[in-house]
Amino acid sequence: MTTGKSSSKEMSSIKVGLLGLGVVGGGTWKVLQKNAEEIARRAGRRIEITAVAVRDVEKARKLLGDADVHITTDGLEIARDPGIDIVVELIGGETTALEWVMEAIRQGKHVVTANKAMLAVHGNQIFDAAGEHGVMVAFEAAVAGGIPIIKAMREGLTANRIEWIAGIINGTTNFILSEMQSRGLPFNTVLAEAQRLGYAEADPTFDIEGVDAAHKLTLLASLAFGIPVQFDKACIEGIAKLEAEDIQHAARLGYRIKLLGITRRRDDGIELRVHPTLIRMGSPLANVEGAMNAVLVHGDVVGPTLYYGQGAGEMPTASAVVADLVDVARLDSADPEHRVPHLAFQPDAVKDIPILSADDIETAHYLRLRVEDRPGVLADISRILADAQISIGSMIQEPVQPSEASIIFLLHRAREGAVREAIRQIQNLPFVRSEVTRLRVEGSI
Amino acid sequence: MTTGKSSSKEMSSIKVGLLGLGVVGGGTWKVLQKNAEEIARRAGRRIEITAVAVRDVEKARKLLGDADVHITTDGLEIARDPGIDIVVELIGGETTALEWVMEAIRQGKHVVTANKAMLAVHGNQIFDAAGEHGVMVAFEAAVAGGIPIIKAMREGLTANRIEWIAGIINGTTNFILSEMQSRGLPFNTVLAEAQRLGYAEADPTFDIEGVDAAHKLTLLASLAFGIPVQFDKACIEGIAKLEAEDIQHAARLGYRIKLLGITRRRDDGIELRVHPTLIRMGSPLANVEGAMNAVLVHGDVVGPTLYYGQGAGEMPTASAVVADLVDVARLDSADPEHRVPHLAFQPDAVKDIPILSADDIETAHYLRLRVEDRPGVLADISRILADAQISIGSMIQEPVQPSEASIIFLLHRAREGAVREAIRQIQNLPFVRSEVTRLRVEGSI
Repeated sequence: MTTGKSSSKEMSSIKVGLLGLGVVGGGTWKVLQKNAEEIARRAGRRIEITAVAVRDVEKARKLLGDADVHITTDGLEIARDPGIDIVVELIGGETTALEWVMEAIRQGKHVVTANKAMLAVHGNQIFDAAGEHGVMVAFEAAVAGGIPIIKAMREGLTANRIEWIAGIINGTTNFILSEMQSRGLPFNTVLAEAQRLGYAEADPTFDIEGVDAAHKLTLLASLAFGIPVQFDKACIEGIAKLEAEDIQHAARLGYRIKLLGITRRRDDGIELRVHPTLIRMGSPLANVEGAMNAVLVHGDVVGPTLYYGQGAGEMPTASAVVADLVDVARLDSADPEHRVPHLAFQPDAVKDIPILSADDIETAHYLRLRVEDRPGVLADISRILADAQISIGSMIQEPVQPSEASIIFLLHRAREGAVREAIRQIQNLPFVRSEVTRLRVEGSI
Repeated sequence: MTTGKSSSKEMSSIKVGLLGLGVVGGGTWKVLQKNAEEIARRAGRRIEITAVAVRDVEKARKLLGDADVHITTDGLEIARDPGIDIVVELIGGETTALEWVMEAIRQGKHVVTANKAMLAVHGNQIFDAAGEHGVMVAFEAAVAGGIPIIKAMREGLTANRIEWIAGIINGTTNFILSEMQSRGLPFNTVLAEAQRLGYAEADPTFDIEGVDAAHKLTLLASLAFGIPVQFDKACIEGIAKLEAEDIQHAARLGYRIKLLGITRRRDDGIELRVHPTLIRMGSPLANVEGAMNAVLVHGDVVGPTLYYGQGAGEMPTASAVVADLVDVARLDSADPEHRVPHLAFQPDAVKDIPILSADDIETAHYLRLRVEDRPGVLADISRILADAQISIGSMIQEPVQPSEASIIFLLHRAREGAVREAIRQIQNLPFVRSEVTRLRVEGSI
């Protein structure tokens, strides 16, 4: 083996145009400076940012110092610059980002993006255009930050029929749930603190409502099962209505509550869902705390594998962006047929397997409700569940006020439609004094 | 996006010759049958085993049924068969395996192997020959079974300067340590049980002495730091001398004992070592139980990422072999310069950074010894440690017999050479009644 100094410096560098120089864009710039040598030793050539599109030119100039980088406010200028090989899109959103990315593809440029919202909604259009123009669209940074989960799905687990994936893929909500658990505080208090600490955005809707997790899960499902991206069919429920009380009850029953993205292949279709979930304390996902992410993938051959790390932030996300740049640099001039397909499966092998409706999803459930403390209460509720063919795993009843009791059920697996209808009937019973709280339980994850 | 039936079946299949049809070879055959459709949808073409080399032709015929597979006892025949594109080596060992693999490379065939011993010792020669003949040598199955850790290192973390890796990369020893911990049984009892259950081989030396883990660690270190493979420079210590008592003491101090492979980059060189290690109970590695594997990689950009799954066995290992086959099938006819380099770094960028000697390694230590219970004992021991500039973190002293005491020290980080010399001096103190037990502590993993 030849050792000694790299000759990479003498090879032609690959030219990158960066759209957006915010948190992740700035991180990408820094990583390419800091680890330039190490990266060139791996890629076989230098990766050089030669142009950036930003809103604030002055601010960009300050960050870039005296580097020889063209600064513009117009991303289309970069998308059309014949001197640029790869366009990195880090502005986010679904409008301007989509316009600039599509133009870059039409101009024959490879694209690297961290934009899960854009891909989850417009991915099919983007990947089709990329196939047509023979370019790569890489998006490792779009899911779970620096954890190379896209690579694991597209390349590492190709021997497997993937059976299911369950992931903690939103750091904000996991931070909030960890704090609610460990300190017994209510959701709103913890959210305010998370915002103060920078773990949650000023408008945290996308995170706490589960939309961000559903964007990422949509991409994982396509990679796992070889289906088109179908964000509009995801069942999504966030954590805003979760009460600290439920976290405590779950703990007494041996469970933690996590916001999970779950996608599962069944004979009749695919489940695609994001919701707060009770998982056993022994699950590898149960101890993932704070803003960390983890994805558990179950393949028929390899069994369960887990991928864990920082799922967001300047540097972890930049790590994924730059890994994609190295991939593209390595494969830049290879024939399209030699590259790894965008959605893990060859484009002509993508199948339109149906995504199941919310009613057809099957899980176990946790129910909590308050009732008037009088004879016959349990009999009436049990009768409704029995008539719906839903069996009870365990139950806790305890007094909460002189004349009221709190009842908690762990129900066995059942169709969501049946559970929903049973809850509607229970809710109408005359002695029920609260809304019925319903959470899904995944005992086998 | 075009959906519908795959057209892969119409494309030319890639032809594989299998050397060895034992546990992993048999698993590879089964996976390629079972998931043929799913794999072809990903790879873009069928992957077909057309020849196998085995010791027992009759047995092979039984496994393969009426499949159209040529069976031979001579691997060279397969290595030289012009109809074969990829040779998969699964016979293990360093002699015949090396001969057949080198011949396959000379014949211009790609190689997939699970043989960590061969690669850790002869890897430089093998990768050089592969470079010369323009073929790929893929070895995902050589480290941590079905966990795609090689791919993560070579491709997923390319943005990073890798700082250290710590891994539980031998399932047999982790199973034994888990059992010793949970059931308080001595090493020999648990080993015998592990052998009965098939978790340990009849001759378990390679596993329990840490050699197998060191083979794997050697490969990880090369991938992480861009250095030639240098198994002969690894510091290796197994678990055979570990006593159940030490596991209990460690637990009282808040630690678990795991056999870790650790490689770390320092300014003056690289640490490459396998030994039983005390790690904090909160470490992501501390809860990896039974025969599971996990690798924790620390990159300067991404921070820590963890990869977890089944590290051995028929199907998990076959998962990695087949993933390599898909990689090779995808890149088969691409120019060598477009492929991912064998050791993550371009061949001309591999550097010969020195591997540090055992004496130069720095860790914290756990010491345990028995002493005569009389005044001045602690003073004398403390003096030796102080003179060697080794500071004491915590200490437990407790009576074990009327006239004897057991002393346990947690020492702060120090050069191993200094610790070794201090232990020699302590051992010679007249009141010391046992051998000094010494274990490394890694508080930051």
